[in-house]
Amino acid sequence: MSSFDPPATAVREAVSRALAEDLGPLGDLTAALLPAGVSAVADLVPRAVGVLAGNLAATEAFLQVDPGVAVRWYADDGDDVVAGVAVGEVSGPLASILTAERTALNFLGHLSGVATLTHRFVAVAAGGGRTRIRDTRKTTPGLRALEKAAVRAGGGLNHRGSLSDGVLVKDNHLAGIGVSQAVGRTRALWPGRAVQVECDTVEQVQAAADANAELVLLDNMTPEQVRRCVELVAFRCLVEVSGGVNLATVAAYADAVADLISVGAITHSAPVLDIGLDVRPQPASGA
Amino acid sequence: MSSFDPPATAVREAVSRALAEDLGPLGDLTAALLPAGVSAVADLVPRAVGVLAGNLAATEAFLQVDPGVAVRWYADDGDDVVAGVAVGEVSGPLASILTAERTALNFLGHLSGVATLTHRFVAVAAGGGRTRIRDTRKTTPGLRALEKAAVRAGGGLNHRGSLSDGVLVKDNHLAGIGVSQAVGRTRALWPGRAVQVECDTVEQVQAAADANAELVLLDNMTPEQVRRCVELVAFRCLVEVSGGVNLATVAAYADAVADLISVGAITHSAPVLDIGLDVRPQPASGA
Amino acid sequence: MSSFDPPATAVREAVSRALAEDLGPLGDLTAALLPAGVSAVADLVPRAVGVLAGNLAATEAFLQVDPGVAVRWYADDGDDVVAGVAVGEVSGPLASILTAERTALNFLGHLSGVATLTHRFVAVAAGGGRTRIRDTRKTTPGLRALEKAAVRAGGGLNHRGSLSDGVLVKDNHLAGIGVSQAVGRTRALWPGRAVQVECDTVEQVQAAADANAELVLLDNMTPEQVRRCVELVAFRCLVEVSGGVNLATVAAYADAVADLISVGAITHSAPVLDIGLDVRPQPASGA
Amino acid sequence: MSSFDPPATAVREAVSRALAEDLGPLGDLTAALLPAGVSAVADLVPRAVGVLAGNLAATEAFLQVDPGVAVRWYADDGDDVVAGVAVGEVSGPLASILTAERTALNFLGHLSGVATLTHRFVAVAAGGGRTRIRDTRKTTPGLRALEKAAVRAGGGLNHRGSLSDGVLVKDNHLAGIGVSQAVGRTRALWPGRAVQVECDTVEQVQAAADANAELVLLDNMTPEQVRRCVELVAFRCLVEVSGGVNLATVAAYADAVADLISVGAITHSAPVLDIGLDVRPQPASGA
Amino acid sequence: MSSFDPPATAVREAVSRALAEDLGPLGDLTAALLPAGVSAVADLVPRAVGVLAGNLAATEAFLQVDPGVAVRWYADDGDDVVAGVAVGEVSGPLASILTAERTALNFLGHLSGVATLTHRFVAVAAGGGRTRIRDTRKTTPGLRALEKAAVRAGGGLNHRGSLSDGVLVKDNHLAGIGVSQAVGRTRALWPGRAVQVECDTVEQVQAAADANAELVLLDNMTPEQVRRCVELVAFRCLVEVSGGVNLATVAAYADAVADLISVGAITHSAPVLDIGLDVRPQPASGA
Amino acid sequence: MSSFDPPATAVREAVSRALAEDLGPLGDLTAALLPAGVSAVADLVPRAVGVLAGNLAATEAFLQVDPGVAVRWYADDGDDVVAGVAVGEVSGPLASILTAERTALNFLGHLSGVATLTHRFVAVAAGGGRTRIRDTRKTTPGLRALEKAAVRAGGGLNHRGSLSDGVLVKDNHLAGIGVSQAVGRTRALWPGRAVQVECDTVEQVQAAADANAELVLLDNMTPEQVRRCVELVAFRCLVEVSGGVNLATVAAYADAVADLISVGAITHSAPVLDIGLDVRPQPASGA
Repeated sequence: MSSFDPPATAVREAVSRALAEDLGPLGDLTAALLPAGVSAVADLVPRAVGVLAGNLAATEAFLQVDPGVAVRWYADDGDDVVAGVAVGEVSGPLASILTAERTALNFLGHLSGVATLTHRFVAVAAGGGRTRIRDTRKTTPGLRALEKAAVRAGGGLNHRGSLSDGVLVKDNHLAGIGVSQAVGRTRALWPGRAVQVECDTVEQVQAAADANAELVLLDNMTPEQVRRCVELVAFRCLVEVSGGVNLATVAAYADAVADLISVGAITHSAPVLDIGLDVRPQPASGA
Repeated sequence: MSSFDPPATAVREAVSRALAEDLGPLGDLTAALLPAGVSAVADLVPRAVGVLAGNLAATEAFLQVDPGVAVRWYADDGDDVVAGVAVGEVSGPLASILTAERTALNFLGHLSGVATLTHRFVAVAAGGGRTRIRDTRKTTPGLRALEKAAVRAGGGLNHRGSLSDGVLVKDNHLAGIGVSQAVGRTRALWPGRAVQVECDTVEQVQAAADANAELVLLDNMTPEQVRRCVELVAFRCLVEVSGGVNLATVAAYADAVADLISVGAITHSAPVLDIGLDVRPQPASGA
Repeated sequence: MSSFDPPATAVREAVSRALAEDLGPLGDLTAALLPAGVSAVADLVPRAVGVLAGNLAATEAFLQVDPGVAVRWYADDGDDVVAGVAVGEVSGPLASILTAERTALNFLGHLSGVATLTHRFVAVAAGGGRTRIRDTRKTTPGLRALEKAAVRAGGGLNHRGSLSDGVLVKDNHLAGIGVSQAVGRTRALWPGRAVQVECDTVEQVQAAADANAELVLLDNMTPEQVRRCVELVAFRCLVEVSGGVNLATVAAYADAVADLISVGAITHSAPVLDIGLDVRPQPASGA
Repeated sequence: MSSFDPPATAVREAVSRALAEDLGPLGDLTAALLPAGVSAVADLVPRAVGVLAGNLAATEAFLQVDPGVAVRWYADDGDDVVAGVAVGEVSGPLASILTAERTALNFLGHLSGVATLTHRFVAVAAGGGRTRIRDTRKTTPGLRALEKAAVRAGGGLNHRGSLSDGVLVKDNHLAGIGVSQAVGRTRALWPGRAVQVECDTVEQVQAAADANAELVLLDNMTPEQVRRCVELVAFRCLVEVSGGVNLATVAAYADAVADLISVGAITHSAPVLDIGLDVRPQPASGA
Repeated sequence: MSSFDPPATAVREAVSRALAEDLGPLGDLTAALLPAGVSAVADLVPRAVGVLAGNLAATEAFLQVDPGVAVRWYADDGDDVVAGVAVGEVSGPLASILTAERTALNFLGHLSGVATLTHRFVAVAAGGGRTRIRDTRKTTPGLRALEKAAVRAGGGLNHRGSLSDGVLVKDNHLAGIGVSQAVGRTRALWPGRAVQVECDTVEQVQAAADANAELVLLDNMTPEQVRRCVELVAFRCLVEVSGGVNLATVAAYADAVADLISVGAITHSAPVLDIGLDVRPQPASGA
Repeated sequence: MSSFDPPATAVREAVSRALAEDLGPLGDLTAALLPAGVSAVADLVPRAVGVLAGNLAATEAFLQVDPGVAVRWYADDGDDVVAGVAVGEVSGPLASILTAERTALNFLGHLSGVATLTHRFVAVAAGGGRTRIRDTRKTTPGLRALEKAAVRAGGGLNHRGSLSDGVLVKDNHLAGIGVSQAVGRTRALWPGRAVQVECDTVEQVQAAADANAELVLLDNMTPEQVRRCVELVAFRCLVEVSGGVNLATVAAYADAVADLISVGAITHSAPVLDIGLDVRPQPASGA
C-alpha cells in the first residue's frame, strides 16, 4: 500500500464491474477459438511518454479473470514511462490474457492519462517555485477513488473527495447572508474543518480573508487579479486559482504565486495514455 | 425510450454509484449551511458549442437525491447546443439542487463530450460521402452502456458492446493457424455471427476477403494502403479503418472510401463539454 | 400483497439482475430499428393450460424498462389459465414492450411452470384426502423466494426457506450419536423449533417418533413401507415422504396417507408454461 | 479457462447470491449439531446418465463457505457421466461440506441437466449430418451466462447472449416496413453485424434471402416447409428452425437439412440431472 | 431534505439490505395467516422520553414493502418525544404494515436512541456555555451515514465522516518524527485541510499549538489537565476532549471549557429508544 | 467453522461495506503521512472484562485492506477476556494496520459487546437451573447474522432469524379469529413448524396450550404471573418470557422457571466492549 494507491475495496469493485461489462454473458467469443492449453508471455508497453498509474487495477483485472495469470511490474504508479519500454509483464494462459486485456488496459490507459496530464500541469506550475496542482470533484462517475489516486501519482494533490469532506462556500450558498456569516455558521456547524470560500471579486476575497477563511478559491480571475488577491491576502489564508486554467495559462497563474491551482481537466478531460499489450512470439513447438 | 438512450437499468445503477461516491457519509456539508425551505430554479447552460448527451442520467441524479426536484429539458440527447443557451431547467429545494449538481453535471459533461467529439469525427468523415464513425471497446470502465449511447447521440455507430458480442480475430488468435481456418472455426462455433478480421498487411486482407470474412479491420495503415485494400476487397466485405485515426487524418481515410472508421479517442479521450448550472437570482423576499 | 407474493425486495432485485443480463451494454439492437413514437397494445396469452404465477415479476420487468408501460392483469397468481385466453395486457411504447418482453416472459413462464407442475402433484395427491405437497431447497440458484411463492400459487406448501430455518437431521448428522441424542441437542440448541428427522428404515422412524421428533421424512421408501411407518407413528408426529416421487407414483404415496410429500421436481425440473406476448395489429395510421 | 466455462465473475456472483439465499441469517442450524472438528471425504455421484456441467460453480460454492474444503474433479464439464460413478470428491470439515452441499448440487444438477438435454438434442440432430443445436434467450433469469456455458458443454451452440448482441427482426419490428427495408436499416445502424430474420411464411423467407439477410429463422414450420425453404434459400444464408421443436420432432427437422435448430427447452425446461453427495463412512475413531 | 437527513441513497440501500435480511426467502409466515384485504391504521408510539431520529428510514421500510402503505409523521427528526404520544401514523394493508414493522422500528429505535443519548450529553455539556458534543468514527458498521445524521438530530456535531475526510495525527503516526514535522507534511500533502493532533501530554499540546495545528485532541486527560491545556492553548486552536467521557464526567470537562468533547458512546453504546407500533382496534365490520 | 461463526458470505459483505464507508474516496489521509515500508506488530487488547466475538469479521477487515497483514488470535469467539491481556496480534505494514484498525475494532467491539451482555443475562438466568436466554429480531439493521452469532458466542440462543423462519402469532394476527383458529391455520399453511403464540393474559396462555402451540411467549408479565402460567402450562409447551426484562429483573423471571427469556437489549442496546489496538514500540532502527 503506497499513498498513490486507491483503497483496495474500491479497486476490487471497479474492476469486477468493468469485467462484467466487457465479458457479457458469453465471455470472449474470439478467445474461444484458441486451442486449449496455449500459454503466453506478454509485455505491457507504452506507446508514448507519460506517467504510469493504475497498476493495482490492471493486476486485479487479470487475476479476476484467471488467478492463474501472473503479473509483474517493472515500473510503479507515479513512475515516468517512455514509448516502447515495457512497464510490466503478464504470463499465463493466452485465452485468459486476451480476455482480460481490454479491461486491464482501459484502466491503465485512463488512469495513466490522468497521471500524465496532472504531471504536465505540475511541471509547468512548479516553475513559480510555490504553486501546487489540485484536482476537483469533476471526476468520471464511478471512478472517483481511482482517479484521485492517479492525480497523486502524477504529482498533484487532492481537493475534496466528496461533498462530505470539506466546506466550500459558493455564491449560491450566500443567499441573503454575507461571507462572514457563512464562515461563522461553518465554525458552529462543522468545527475543526477548514472553510474555503469561492470568490469572484476582490471584495469577496477581502471579506473571506477578514472572516478568517482558511482558503479562498479565485474563480475565473486573470493572473493579474490573482496576483492582486495574493497580495491582499498576505498569507492570511491559502489562495487557490480555479476555473478554466489550461496548459497555456497555468504558468501565468503560477507566476502570480497562487498556492494552489485546481484543474478539472486533469480528471474530466485527460486523454488516455496509450499502453498496449504485446504478446511475445511463441517459440516453434517442435524446436 | 429513444435509440440514443442507454438501458434504464444501467443508468439507475451508474447514477446511484456516482451519488454514493460524491455524497459520502455526511452528505453535502456546505448545503447544510443553507436556511431550510429555500427553493430555486436553475438553468443548465452549455459554455461551449457541442452535442448534448446524458439527459437521462442527469435527470436521474437530481431525482435520486430528491424526488421533489423537477427537471425539464429544452434539448434532447443528440441535439446541437450552443454556448449560453440553456438546454434544461431544474427547480425545487435549493439544497437538493446543489447537492446533486456535480454528479448530474459530471454525467452530462462527460457524455456530451463523447457525443461532441464523435460528432466532429462524423462531420469530417461524412465529406467522403460513405464513411461512418464507430466506437471501440476502449471505454471508461463502468460507463460502457452510457458512453456507447452518447456515441449514437453524436451520430456515431457502435462496434462490439462486449467480448460476447461479435468475433474479431486478431494476430494473437492466429497462433499456428491461418485466417481461413480461424474463419472456419468461427462459422462452426458461432454460426450466424459476422467474422471481423484485424489485418496489418494487404496479404491478410486478401486472405480474409477470400475466406469470406464479413469485415476487415485495417490496423494502423496509411490512407494509401487503405485505398488499395478497399479496391482489393471490392465490396466483398466491409472495410473498417482503425488505429490512431485523429481529426487531422480522418478526412484522408474517409477519402480512401473505407466503410467505417473506428476511433477509440471518442470514448477514451473525449474532453468534457462544459455545461454549468446557473441558479436564477431569487426575487427579494420582501418585494 | 397476497400470500402468493414473494417479498417485494426479492422481486425488484431479481428483475433488475435479469434485465441487466438481457439488455447488455447496447440495449435492444433490433428495437432500435423501430420508428420513434410507435405505441402498441399487447396481450399475454398462454399457449397451454396451467396455473399462473409471476405476475409481480413480469410487471416489474416492464416498469423497470420504462415506467411509461402499463400492465393490467385479468388473472392473478394461482389462477387457472387456458391456452389462447389472455391473462393480461401491456400497453405503451412498442420499443419498450419488445425490449422487456423476453425478461418478463422468462419470469412468467418459469414461475407459472413451477405453479403448474406443483398443481398437478397437488391434484393427484389430494385424492387421498389428506396429503399435501411441499417443495424442497432444490430450487434454481438465485430464485428461491420467487419459486417458493410459485409453489404456493400452485397449491403447494413450503418446506424450509433456508438452512437457518428449521432443523432436518440426516444420516450425516448422526456421526456417532443416535437419533434421540440429536433431537436432544436440537432441543437444547434451537428450542422452539420443530425437529425433522430423515429416516431410511422403519427402525429410524421408530426411534424418531420415540424421541418426539415433530416430523419424520421417509427417504426413498415404497408406498408400502410408508404405510407401515404411518401406522407405527400413529399421529405422534407428521409423516413426510421424500425422494424421487413423481406424477406416476404420487397417488400411491398419498394413498399411504402420508401427511406430506416433498417433491424437488416442482422447482428443479418444472418445464416452462409457454406464455406469449401478442402485439395487437396496429390500425392503419391513415384510417 | 476452457470454452465451456462461463465468465469467472458471473460464477462468483451467482454463487455468492445463492449461498446468501440458502444460508440465511443463522447459517446451517443442523450442521451446528455436529461435534466440532469432524472431517470427512464425500463423493459427488450422478444417479443417472448424462453430461456434466457446472464444475466451476460447484467448486466455488464449497470454497466460499470454507476455503478449507478441497474439491477434486474426475470429470470435466462436457464429459459423459454414468449413474453411480463419482465425478468428483470433496474433503474437509464435515459441517462445511454439508452447509455448502445443497447450493453446490443445485448448480451442478441444474447445469448438468441443461448440458444433458442439450446433448440429447445434439445427438439426434447429428443424424442428418449437418444440423447443429442452438439455445435461445429463454433462459432462467439470473443464470444466463451459466446456462449458456452448459449448453456449450452439452455440444450445443449459443444464439444471442443478450439483446445487444445481434439483430433478429421479427414481425413486430416490421410495422409498416418490409423485410428489405429492415435489413437496410440494420446495415445502416449496426454495420458489421449479421441480420437474422424470423419468417412465418415462404414468402418472407424469399424476401429475407433476397435482401441478403445472413440467417432466416423459420418459426413454427413443418419439416416439409423447412425443406422447401432450405431449397429456396440455396445456401444464400443460414437456415435455422425454431418454435416448439422437441426430441420427437428434431430428427425430422434435421433431415430437412436445416443448418441450425434453436430449442428453448434446453434451458427453460431441462430437468435436473440428479447428482448426489455421498459422505464416505468414517473409520471408527478407536481403530 | 433537512440537515438532519442522511443522504437519500444511503437510506435506500440500508433499508433494502435490512428488509432482505428480515423477510428471508418466504416473507412473513405469520402475516400470511391474515385474511386478505384487511386494512388498518397504526400509531408509532414512543414508550419513553427521547429525541426522534430515523423518520426517513422508517418511511422507506414501509414503502419498500408496499408502496400502498401511507406514512404520516407528527414529529420530525430532532424533535423531543414523550412516552405515549404518537409521533406518526401508518395506514394501509395490515399484512404489509406488520411485515415492515420490525425493520422500520429497528431503524427508528436505534437512530432515536443515538439522538437521545447525544442529546443528553449535549444538554449536560451546554451547562458550561461553550462546549459542544461530537461523535467519532466508532459507529456501527454499515450505518455510518444514518448514525451521523442521528447525532445531528440530537444536537451533536459530526467529527470525520471517514478516513478520507480530515487528518488526525496520533502517536502511531509519529514514528520517528515530531509533531511539527507531521503538521508540515500534512500542509504539503493535504493543503486546505485542518490538522488535528491527538495529545496525551501537556508537552504534546504545546508542540501542536506551536506547530499551528487547528485542533488538539486531548486523550484520556483529567478535567484539571484539560483546563491547563485550554489555558496553554489560549485560543490558538480548538481543544477537543476525547476518551471515555461519560454522562457522569462530561460536566466537569465542559467546565474545563473545552471547545468540543467527542464521545464514542453516543454511536457505539446508545441504548435503543423504545418506540412501538400500535394497531388501532378495527371497528366491527358489521357496525 | 464453529457454531459461533456467522455465515462466511455475510461476513465478507458486511466488512466490505464497512470498509467502503470508512475509507472513502481518498483512503486514510493520515496514514499517507507515514514513511513507506514501515512494518509493525500490534496487539488487540481488551480494556475491560467480557466475552469475545467478531474474530472472523475483524480478521476479514485487515485482510481486505491488505492481504499482507497477518492476524493471529489467542482467544476465540465465546472466550472470556480480561482487561489488559491481548486476545490477538496483528502484523504487517503499519499504514495498512492503521487504515483497517477502526473498522476491525468497530466489529470486534460491537459484537463482543453483544456477547458480553448476553453472557451477563445468561449467567444470572442460569441461577434458576433451567432458564435460557434468547435474542429477538430487534437487531441492528444490516448486522442480523453477525449479531445472532455473537449471541451464541455469549451463551445465548437464537430466536427467529427472519420473518420467514417461524410463526409467532401476536394480537394483531388475531383479527376476528381465536388462538385455536390461528394455530389451525398455521398447521394447514406451514406444517412442520412450531407455533409460538404471544400472550398478554393467562386466558390466552390457557387457550394457546389447549390449542397445542409449541411455545407461549408471555409478554410484559410479572414474575408472579409467569409462575402461574408455567404451572398452568405444565410442560405442555415451552414458556418464554419477553418484554423489557433487564439485568435487575431477569433472576426473578428465571426463578419463575420459564424455559426461555428473550431479551431485545442484548442486540439493540449492548454497549461496546472496549478493545484497543496497541502498536508495539519499534526497535530503534540503528540498534
